[in-house]
Amino acid sequence: MKLTCTQSELNTNLSLVSRVVPSRPTHPILGNVLFVADAETQKVTLTAFDLSLGIQTSFAAVVETSGKLTIPAKLLSDIVSRLSAGEITLSDTVNFDAEAGHLVTLISASGRYQMRGMSADEFPALPQVQSETAISLPVEALKQGLGSTLFATSPDETKQVLTGVHLTVGQDGIEFAATDGHRLAVVETKNLDEDNQEIEPFQVTVPTRALKELERMIATKQPTDAVMLYFEQGQLVFQEGEQRLTTRTLEGTYPAYRQLIPVQFQRQLTIDRKQLLGAVERIGVLADQKNNTVKFSIDSTNQQLSLSVEAQDVGSGQESMPIQATGDDLLITFNVKYLIDGLKTLATTEIQMLINTADTPVILVPLGELKMTYLIMPVQIIR
Amino acid sequence: MKLTCTQSELNTNLSLVSRVVPSRPTHPILGNVLFVADAETQKVTLTAFDLSLGIQTSFAAVVETSGKLTIPAKLLSDIVSRLSAGEITLSDTVNFDAEAGHLVTLISASGRYQMRGMSADEFPALPQVQSETAISLPVEALKQGLGSTLFATSPDETKQVLTGVHLTVGQDGIEFAATDGHRLAVVETKNLDEDNQEIEPFQVTVPTRALKELERMIATKQPTDAVMLYFEQGQLVFQEGEQRLTTRTLEGTYPAYRQLIPVQFQRQLTIDRKQLLGAVERIGVLADQKNNTVKFSIDSTNQQLSLSVEAQDVGSGQESMPIQATGDDLLITFNVKYLIDGLKTLATTEIQMLINTADTPVILVPLGELKMTYLIMPVQIIR
Repeated sequence: MKLTCTQSELNTNLSLVSRVVPSRPTHPILGNVLFVADAETQKVTLTAFDLSLGIQTSFAAVVETSGKLTIPAKLLSDIVSRLSAGEITLSDTVNFDAEAGHLVTLISASGRYQMRGMSADEFPALPQVQSETAISLPVEALKQGLGSTLFATSPDETKQVLTGVHLTVGQDGIEFAATDGHRLAVVETKNLDEDNQEIEPFQVTVPTRALKELERMIATKQPTDAVMLYFEQGQLVFQEGEQRLTTRTLEGTYPAYRQLIPVQFQRQLTIDRKQLLGAVERIGVLADQKNNTVKFSIDSTNQQLSLSVEAQDVGSGQESMPIQATGDDLLITFNVKYLIDGLKTLATTEIQMLINTADTPVILVPLGELKMTYLIMPVQIIR
Repeated sequence: MKLTCTQSELNTNLSLVSRVVPSRPTHPILGNVLFVADAETQKVTLTAFDLSLGIQTSFAAVVETSGKLTIPAKLLSDIVSRLSAGEITLSDTVNFDAEAGHLVTLISASGRYQMRGMSADEFPALPQVQSETAISLPVEALKQGLGSTLFATSPDETKQVLTGVHLTVGQDGIEFAATDGHRLAVVETKNLDEDNQEIEPFQVTVPTRALKELERMIATKQPTDAVMLYFEQGQLVFQEGEQRLTTRTLEGTYPAYRQLIPVQFQRQLTIDRKQLLGAVERIGVLADQKNNTVKFSIDSTNQQLSLSVEAQDVGSGQESMPIQATGDDLLITFNVKYLIDGLKTLATTEIQMLINTADTPVILVPLGELKMTYLIMPVQIIR
């Protein structure tokens, strides 16, 4: 293998795939990145894979000799990221001392580095998804779906399917859902191509970590770029241009969350989102000293919402703001963190809170185009 | 006590003093900030003190009723920093329930908070320095002195005086010195006022933590603003405008570092600083896998410097760059971290390395106005 490319191109692509490489690989080869250089297409493909999540990316390079090789990911990207802009040549020489293995040489304008590579034959193959039916999703819709649900997944590994985002793919769009058992975020994205009319609807739960990498991968793409989605039992592939992310899916039945969302409400509040967020964050300082809850007092007559907290031995706080409210007055208590998470994500100037009683699910929705539903359970206060 | 001020003024001043407040105070009162409001001068003074380091700051406010009170620092600054711009009123009401103590009420446009304060009588007094002789130092010189030495102090608390910066105050200026036993940074600052001609020279070692807070305190000041320095056995005070920092000094004899600095050199190299820093940082990636050392090979004939590292089982690296060199060729080894620290701080386009032999102290100096000396010991390699 011998190739020459720019520092910037190599650095960008290495940074993308290196994030998948585990810091303590279970097998040495998994700490490496696979380089495949093709003299015919003048392209280099990089692959990193931790047996669950894999990322592949290709870029143009001057390939003098085709070849395959794996190189220690952290070492290589630490050096490449510190090199000045300019050309880099990577080549391997099979060292005939079998124990020493492959030696990779990196040459830049300022110096020369050698690292021990490993044979590409040992590198595990990324799962191949045979499915010919691809679903196409605009980058914008995917960003919206991920950005509005990823925060609500459970970080607790024992929670199985709750550690992922559930995708319901239909002919009209994809619904993203995430819950950690305390709150639920659901977003419907439309905007699929007409080609998608052919597809078989399916449901799948995807690990949070893979979707966070996907978010990063598409961060710099154009809103209308299309991401292709291939699904086969146990595997999901996202492809955009030269970049491909492969992830295993989570096994197990996802909760039937739709039936948790009430269809009728006794009370409806319209509130300035930033004003409410600011008040909850300030009240949260005191709530943090106690059980992390804030009491909402809804006053329909005066069209006012009051937030309060009493932290014994520490202090108390109270904030008020004008709202538009229908329904009777109510006292209802919420967990500060779940409120703040939702208010940060909803991202419109105004939001609606849809409430029945002080001990049934409450829904927050943005007042805008995005079809998002955020459900939180009020906190039951023993009186 | 009753005062009204802007959120921005209160927030800025609280942030400054709160940094001194320990997160786990040995006595509850030390977790508080002392407020002193004076109706006559229409000023509020805030003080925080951990018995070693104290910061005091004053600002203008509408003081309706004079008074003193201490308020929990973290709670108050967490709330104030989250408030919107606008007016804030702080007042205390002595609660006649003796156990409950003072109640402080904060009123902003959006809400109302109450916190438990403690009597100002319990707050320890900042040490008073009687010395009438003040030394005046421009902010610029102080910034230079701190910025060029603080990094070289020892973080190891058992190292006593080495955990501080040593100041030698004379009639012509202040010399700042710091060493952790492996390297030494010395900076001479001039530019004292003529008034300083009267002062008695003295030497003092000041804890790193206090000087880091001082650095922060003067960060936004004008270069020519004067910082007044008052010294008395065991205490040092820095005062700039309305702000005052008081610190205990470190006891013990500071090493006689001047005698470590050679006066004659067999070799002198002039090197582009950023080029050398980049090379050392890249080589450092591989050195990190081994003993963190880099080998310098000085080639006077070709006016070239080569850096190299051999990390067995991992790889090797080599970089070269043009230099201006006098003296014979030499192989000499350095610790990567000490080199990088110095090269980052020297801050001129070119630097000089002054070398005698491979096992005697090496000096780095900037090629510019700043009178800085950075000494590192080469690493002895057993051959």
